[in-house]
Amino acid sequence: MKRNDTPVYYGDYLQLDKILGAQAFQSEKYGEPAHDEMLFIIVHQVYELWFKQVLHELNAIIDTFSQERMPDDELIGVVHRLHRIIQIQQLMNDQISVMETMTPQQFLSFRDYLVPASGFQSIQFKRLEISLGLKREYRIDFDKQSFFNRLTDKDRELLEALENKSSLFELVDEWLARMPLLEKDEFAFWQHYKSAADDLLASDKQTITENETLSDKEKAQELKDWQGTRENFDALFDKEKYEALRQDGVFRLSHEAMLATLFIKQYPEEPIFNVPFQLITALTEIDEKLTIWRYRHAMMVQRMLGTKIGTGGSSGHHYLKKTTESNRIFVDFFNTATFLLPKDMLPPLPEQVKHYFGFHYS
Amino acid sequence: MKRNDTPVYYGDYLQLDKILGAQAFQSEKYGEPAHDEMLFIIVHQVYELWFKQVLHELNAIIDTFSQERMPDDELIGVVHRLHRIIQIQQLMNDQISVMETMTPQQFLSFRDYLVPASGFQSIQFKRLEISLGLKREYRIDFDKQSFFNRLTDKDRELLEALENKSSLFELVDEWLARMPLLEKDEFAFWQHYKSAADDLLASDKQTITENETLSDKEKAQELKDWQGTRENFDALFDKEKYEALRQDGVFRLSHEAMLATLFIKQYPEEPIFNVPFQLITALTEIDEKLTIWRYRHAMMVQRMLGTKIGTGGSSGHHYLKKTTESNRIFVDFFNTATFLLPKDMLPPLPEQVKHYFGFHYS
Amino acid sequence: MKRNDTPVYYGDYLQLDKILGAQAFQSEKYGEPAHDEMLFIIVHQVYELWFKQVLHELNAIIDTFSQERMPDDELIGVVHRLHRIIQIQQLMNDQISVMETMTPQQFLSFRDYLVPASGFQSIQFKRLEISLGLKREYRIDFDKQSFFNRLTDKDRELLEALENKSSLFELVDEWLARMPLLEKDEFAFWQHYKSAADDLLASDKQTITENETLSDKEKAQELKDWQGTRENFDALFDKEKYEALRQDGVFRLSHEAMLATLFIKQYPEEPIFNVPFQLITALTEIDEKLTIWRYRHAMMVQRMLGTKIGTGGSSGHHYLKKTTESNRIFVDFFNTATFLLPKDMLPPLPEQVKHYFGFHYS
Amino acid sequence: MKRNDTPVYYGDYLQLDKILGAQAFQSEKYGEPAHDEMLFIIVHQVYELWFKQVLHELNAIIDTFSQERMPDDELIGVVHRLHRIIQIQQLMNDQISVMETMTPQQFLSFRDYLVPASGFQSIQFKRLEISLGLKREYRIDFDKQSFFNRLTDKDRELLEALENKSSLFELVDEWLARMPLLEKDEFAFWQHYKSAADDLLASDKQTITENETLSDKEKAQELKDWQGTRENFDALFDKEKYEALRQDGVFRLSHEAMLATLFIKQYPEEPIFNVPFQLITALTEIDEKLTIWRYRHAMMVQRMLGTKIGTGGSSGHHYLKKTTESNRIFVDFFNTATFLLPKDMLPPLPEQVKHYFGFHYS
Repeated sequence: MKRNDTPVYYGDYLQLDKILGAQAFQSEKYGEPAHDEMLFIIVHQVYELWFKQVLHELNAIIDTFSQERMPDDELIGVVHRLHRIIQIQQLMNDQISVMETMTPQQFLSFRDYLVPASGFQSIQFKRLEISLGLKREYRIDFDKQSFFNRLTDKDRELLEALENKSSLFELVDEWLARMPLLEKDEFAFWQHYKSAADDLLASDKQTITENETLSDKEKAQELKDWQGTRENFDALFDKEKYEALRQDGVFRLSHEAMLATLFIKQYPEEPIFNVPFQLITALTEIDEKLTIWRYRHAMMVQRMLGTKIGTGGSSGHHYLKKTTESNRIFVDFFNTATFLLPKDMLPPLPEQVKHYFGFHYS
Repeated sequence: MKRNDTPVYYGDYLQLDKILGAQAFQSEKYGEPAHDEMLFIIVHQVYELWFKQVLHELNAIIDTFSQERMPDDELIGVVHRLHRIIQIQQLMNDQISVMETMTPQQFLSFRDYLVPASGFQSIQFKRLEISLGLKREYRIDFDKQSFFNRLTDKDRELLEALENKSSLFELVDEWLARMPLLEKDEFAFWQHYKSAADDLLASDKQTITENETLSDKEKAQELKDWQGTRENFDALFDKEKYEALRQDGVFRLSHEAMLATLFIKQYPEEPIFNVPFQLITALTEIDEKLTIWRYRHAMMVQRMLGTKIGTGGSSGHHYLKKTTESNRIFVDFFNTATFLLPKDMLPPLPEQVKHYFGFHYS
Repeated sequence: MKRNDTPVYYGDYLQLDKILGAQAFQSEKYGEPAHDEMLFIIVHQVYELWFKQVLHELNAIIDTFSQERMPDDELIGVVHRLHRIIQIQQLMNDQISVMETMTPQQFLSFRDYLVPASGFQSIQFKRLEISLGLKREYRIDFDKQSFFNRLTDKDRELLEALENKSSLFELVDEWLARMPLLEKDEFAFWQHYKSAADDLLASDKQTITENETLSDKEKAQELKDWQGTRENFDALFDKEKYEALRQDGVFRLSHEAMLATLFIKQYPEEPIFNVPFQLITALTEIDEKLTIWRYRHAMMVQRMLGTKIGTGGSSGHHYLKKTTESNRIFVDFFNTATFLLPKDMLPPLPEQVKHYFGFHYS
Repeated sequence: MKRNDTPVYYGDYLQLDKILGAQAFQSEKYGEPAHDEMLFIIVHQVYELWFKQVLHELNAIIDTFSQERMPDDELIGVVHRLHRIIQIQQLMNDQISVMETMTPQQFLSFRDYLVPASGFQSIQFKRLEISLGLKREYRIDFDKQSFFNRLTDKDRELLEALENKSSLFELVDEWLARMPLLEKDEFAFWQHYKSAADDLLASDKQTITENETLSDKEKAQELKDWQGTRENFDALFDKEKYEALRQDGVFRLSHEAMLATLFIKQYPEEPIFNVPFQLITALTEIDEKLTIWRYRHAMMVQRMLGTKIGTGGSSGHHYLKKTTESNRIFVDFFNTATFLLPKDMLPPLPEQVKHYFGFHYS
């Protein structure tokens, strides 16, 4: 390793002249400097720095998955990077409390000078959403239109190019679907699994029908929900049914990826599944933390503006609450819990699967 | 102050024999001890201990407000206790991450032994909701019925008695409504305020109509929302209109309490409004943190069970997500932001108001 | 309030070209780009942005206190700003966990390119310390010398100029000392207080001597400590003794400020003391959070480097641990707990004091 | 899986009669009920519940390591449990903020009734320390004596029995030392490593000597520290020297375990080292979080009592600060950072090592 030949000074290295020289108050420009505009600017700049870091990790992860044949041992590094993203998300969620030290009235002291700027214009945030796997079609109308109405041509083109590239969701789906474990001894295993699932569902139905604390109306509702779960279960074993439900938006993962996910979540203590299980758990966590961020953000906006319009000219918090659920990416990893069986109902893992990757103790 | 005459031993004082002897596994009873059931029990017991503490503070606060004539300086102690509740809520929200270290499959190893127990049966949590101000009528059907279906008679009666007592919401509403500031010089002040509000709303309308980044459809929607805000503003100055909107659920605070809230939030730097402003901010925070807790809890249940039924025989997470917004108590304190004016548009605070309480520097 | 006449675009407003264009890797310069250098840069840039925000609040607070005669009602705004600083500190402390996602070996991949840059060169952090009240004389040798060895002339001069201005510690000390409450009826009150303190100390001594769980050696040590407390108590009532202990570094607050602090902490429920009590509590919190930050930072450095030298050429974590305690500013606000009496031993607050400021209900 | 045959009621399952019936105020017993004693009791009870959970996990981990020959794939479960402990620790650290909502004066309203109870008497906390690996000899005098002075005979005997069992530290040390990787091809690898280390140290020395920002005195000190690091490095390659330094308390890990740790931290991306690396990182984290807890706890006590004696008759915070560093367990895992080499200076991992466990892709 070489040494640097020019001595480094802390402030130069971090380019603090740029970083600390980038806070220009709109309120000052209009002759009424508002003390609290600093907080508004800095909170947003910090968010953008974290977005840059998250994108740095995310892009490296996407590159790893995009290799023709990703070496299995690179998955360890991917999980490490996802855990870093989660730590940053924790901080970003808590950061909302800092913004909330601004009272609604303090915000009013400079709000009108910001028109029509809007958080919708954060290109890095939209890049983050797209790179994770948010499709234009899932966005609610207002957000779809924001691509055309609120962005410069250059920014819109950049995002549209990104929408045409593989997202993390797609790459992970493909990677899961590639897992060859399902080709081996498949029939017997899934037969066994299906029969155990039938028992579990029958037991759940019994729990409902025998539950004396439920009214007739509740019972009817519960049985209807149970029926839905029953059908989803059936779809697991019937690709055609599965694809139909996927069209309806019940599932997003491909059928193969869904089965691989189930396998991994059923047998996480198997050495070959250890890192894949950590991958799935980390992506679940990222989806959860992003969802909490959206929800907290929506509430913060409500607290700051009530039903007043935001600086971008839209009534913010209703819109934002809608995106909380609609913009989730890895929701299938939550819903697979539906299909898990207790350990003692599980069929034994086929030996062929255990050995497929040849990942074993000699 | 007296000294104790019998020496105290740490474990006896804290009754650790009871506390640490209260973890009996259902899974053990059925011969299949599940390691992770301990976490499930202890997480819930910790929640119940915190609920006890929160109720201890909340009841003391309710007692303070319930006095014939609460001495104004007792409000300081109330705010101190609310801040303690907020700190505990922060911890309770973060505690969900501890529960989430249990994988769905670990949960399945003992779930079936718990039927039909359910978090709906936490009497302390229901007490907390009721004491804060949640009315039976706001609860969604499922939760209404749970009073009859899931509780013992004794527990239900206890809660029904509590529903007939004044809640914190009601007491705070009455206290705000009692603020005599509005009787003084009212006409001129509100005239001034109304005219400033008209200017603000006109400016907001202009922001919408001149916003070239909005499509026609968006613009129409924004103008409709603006019209709603306009009507809410009008209702502020017209008790009859206000009561009509209150019947519709747009507002929960009484008209007088709403005006007092607005006053306080407009002039928080006035010494007489300092503690009341802290009160309102703290209640806003409590509502926000409780809402986040509900949302995170719902997501955790989804992660654990997917769409499977819970131990209480209900598909948990859909239900829980519904309560996130419906069970909010102090949502008016968020929405008042709608009516705030920037400092420089505000009419000067009438001198009579400043001096009403005689709370001033001589 | 005027409206802005030029439309604002999010990215321009936040100057994201500067903010997001300020991450130049040293490792890239030397031909061995290290993925993890991004985290190192961004974590430090985020810290510097928060420091800017904290200094923005701190300087406004210092300006408020520096007025010839600060209007008492401005204290409310000061406390609000201190609470904002505390929220930011909470985030800065948690941010260490983000840095710790970098393994020691990842750090080694670019460490050598940073020589001799060092966190000691963060001018904003040194400004923060100085503005809070850290004197050069309290700094340990190494840190004293860093002013001469590690800073550019310009930076050193800036800091030296700041050292000659009044710090928040000094301004708060003067403000507390100015509190006229002590001039009134002083004799009787302090007589009463002294006698109650004597009782308390006698009771504490009894607790020690009667404690059968203490060995003789422990008892001797406890009695010695008790004797120290006794002497500190005596100094409260004897300015000369107090000043002698202050010279020795036992106290930093002036005698008058110490007595005012005691008063405020004894009677926080008095309306006139409500905001001052919040001020003292907030400064205690700031000192505590800064101390925790130093400690966590020192441990993080140990985890990253062990006993290796840092990029600045010094063995970091030993040094940093030393500063944890030595650089505390408001430690007197912790130690005043020594002198507090239980409510029921307190002399009644003199009427003159209650009315001095004329801050009362008519 | 069987179903339960008796319906379960939430409150019965959690034994809430015990849990919520265990808060008896000492202050009430003496006729002066203190509102805030509830917080004191409940905060401590919650801590004890978390200690029970942590011990539940820790004991399971110890059992796993205590097996004659632990199957390597059980390590995954161990790491999962350690991560759960870390999440709980995070909560326990934050819980100090809840306790700090009690003002020193509120604490005084019941402190005297608790004499001579003390946190030293928390048997579960002492069990936790001992099970992690804290030896009596490392405890400071005061804490050593507390075993005899403050505990009942039964409690002391229980702890002494535990001190004679293998702690997690010892078991992990043995497990690391057993790693056979060092027997293979050892000579060539360590030769290579030693030569790279020599280069690194020479480079560090150069950094010091060429550093113009250091004064002569500083330079001398740095070179002395460097010399210490140099000697520690030499000890790595010389078991006798290592054992001498271990006697002096410089190291706690056995020589073999230290070398294995180094290996693992140098090559964490190797599949065989993935889980061991996670193990070491988790133990580092646990040590760090426990250390932060001790430090925050000490500061909280200082804030509450100043230099007054605690209820156990000892001046708390000085003592507690001492234990912060002295009671650390896995400090070697921090200090190994000293010996890490940058990736590009590392010798290639010997093929024999890669294959030793036969843990590979076929």
